[in-house]
Amino acid sequence: MTQTVAAILDWGTSSLRATLLSADGRVLDRRESRNGGIQFVESGAFEAALMAAIGAWFEEHGPFPVAACGMITSRSGWVEVPYVDAPAGLAELAAGARHITLQNGATMTFLPGLRDPAAKPFPDVMRGEETQIVGYGLAEDRTLVLPGTHSKWARIARGRIAAFQTYATGEIYALLTRHSFIARAAEPAPGSEPAWSAFDRAAEFAASDEPAADALLSSVFSARSGILSGALQPEEVGDYVSGLLIASEFRQARAAGWLHPGEAIGIIGNSALSERYGRVAPLFGLTIKPGPEDAATLGVQRIIGKLQSTEQE
Amino acid sequence: MTQTVAAILDWGTSSLRATLLSADGRVLDRRESRNGGIQFVESGAFEAALMAAIGAWFEEHGPFPVAACGMITSRSGWVEVPYVDAPAGLAELAAGARHITLQNGATMTFLPGLRDPAAKPFPDVMRGEETQIVGYGLAEDRTLVLPGTHSKWARIARGRIAAFQTYATGEIYALLTRHSFIARAAEPAPGSEPAWSAFDRAAEFAASDEPAADALLSSVFSARSGILSGALQPEEVGDYVSGLLIASEFRQARAAGWLHPGEAIGIIGNSALSERYGRVAPLFGLTIKPGPEDAATLGVQRIIGKLQSTEQE
Repeated sequence: MTQTVAAILDWGTSSLRATLLSADGRVLDRRESRNGGIQFVESGAFEAALMAAIGAWFEEHGPFPVAACGMITSRSGWVEVPYVDAPAGLAELAAGARHITLQNGATMTFLPGLRDPAAKPFPDVMRGEETQIVGYGLAEDRTLVLPGTHSKWARIARGRIAAFQTYATGEIYALLTRHSFIARAAEPAPGSEPAWSAFDRAAEFAASDEPAADALLSSVFSARSGILSGALQPEEVGDYVSGLLIASEFRQARAAGWLHPGEAIGIIGNSALSERYGRVAPLFGLTIKPGPEDAATLGVQRIIGKLQSTEQE
Repeated sequence: MTQTVAAILDWGTSSLRATLLSADGRVLDRRESRNGGIQFVESGAFEAALMAAIGAWFEEHGPFPVAACGMITSRSGWVEVPYVDAPAGLAELAAGARHITLQNGATMTFLPGLRDPAAKPFPDVMRGEETQIVGYGLAEDRTLVLPGTHSKWARIARGRIAAFQTYATGEIYALLTRHSFIARAAEPAPGSEPAWSAFDRAAEFAASDEPAADALLSSVFSARSGILSGALQPEEVGDYVSGLLIASEFRQARAAGWLHPGEAIGIIGNSALSERYGRVAPLFGLTIKPGPEDAATLGVQRIIGKLQSTEQE
């Protein structure tokens, strides 16, 4: 019953990832609930949802500090934490945290999201990715990409997150492959390899000097015209669209100034999606600077560490 | 019971538009069935569908020639007519027509679609739009846009359709406003005016010198960040996305070489969608050269006229 442990929550819209850490930062346990995201929590019963996920840890260790980042800190979440404005580093993010006390007496800290007031045409926002970026590390000036439903391109400069921009690539992929006429994709057989040749073919086109590669509204139609011309097989459409969209994201990020050939960029996340981004990066002259396994947990630790050292000052 | 009339069908996926013409080309009657498109015709019962639409004309006038263009000539249609390759003019399109005899003895002619073998990354195709372009007129070298679910940009040169490219703008609009998280739109109140200020704001951004305007995968997220920042109202989202996508289509068509500031382009169609394209055109330094009211009917007449004059040679 001592505070020798702490829990870190990466609590997003669709999933809840919880990590139990020892006082010296070792991972003692992990819980990941695919249906634990805030969209599945009914009537604001977040504390009950938390206990369902990590109550066993409290039973074992008694009250201990919990820190959370992600959409749980949004208006649709548990405690809405105002965005911190970019440029922001550890100090600014730590200063934006909010605290509550759970029914069992434990303190729970909610970390802020980040807002880029200079983004065009409107200020851009993220919740959770800023913490992953902190986990990746702010020491070197670098461009990072965080692949996802709403990918983020971010720039680290002088130890802070200087600016970022959202790309809705993952959502457009889902819309096209699930709901569209031009690129509705068959579900791949379970366990089958991606159709890398179709992925690469599309990515190489989107990275090419062809003027039509600047016209994504047109090139997405190639999923359909590829089928009609016999160049694509129906079961390849999903990966073809994936390659086309991810490489188009790089192309557009280049046009918007986020990347320059010859740079080393960071790709945060170890998902299958990150593998696809890593496959496209060389087409744009980029090398990859790997990050840590679990950037979100590391980021929460660093921000909480900063918070504690500030409180002790 | 004489062949003093002819019927022209613009028979697409979702609708059937039929026009009855006198021998001297005057419009005698029109039928438009919103649910008459080929997707609603079950079990290949196209002749029954045709009779349901224009049987009354046959009862009045006896057998008369019928000519059709659009998706009715596709693999999913009544008679599949092979595509004619661009560049193609009246002669090539007329030579590609196919004929059948209906049960009542009338001759029905199916006009071919057009294929652009030089399009990248795969050959592009249209069925019906080529006939509308002929109806617009091939006399002057000009760029044309045909707004729609799958918009077409086409180039007329030396009396023929030289090249074209499909933009899936209308379909992306439907996906975003019906199915997406970032831009799902409320149905506007019946009869309400479009939110032109939101449309214009988005179109002006997409036409601007901002580097982020080249990044459509990102700028679509502005429908969401605009709401979050209070710059957009929920009921404006649909028209905001419309302005953003249509102006992005122009921007991408410019990058792909289809338009140049200072030109006069044609916009084919008199739909509400064409009004939106006409509103965006000046942002790209373009003026509009209007076309005829019913380009499809006029196009069929011209191709059939060419066919008949060729047969008489």
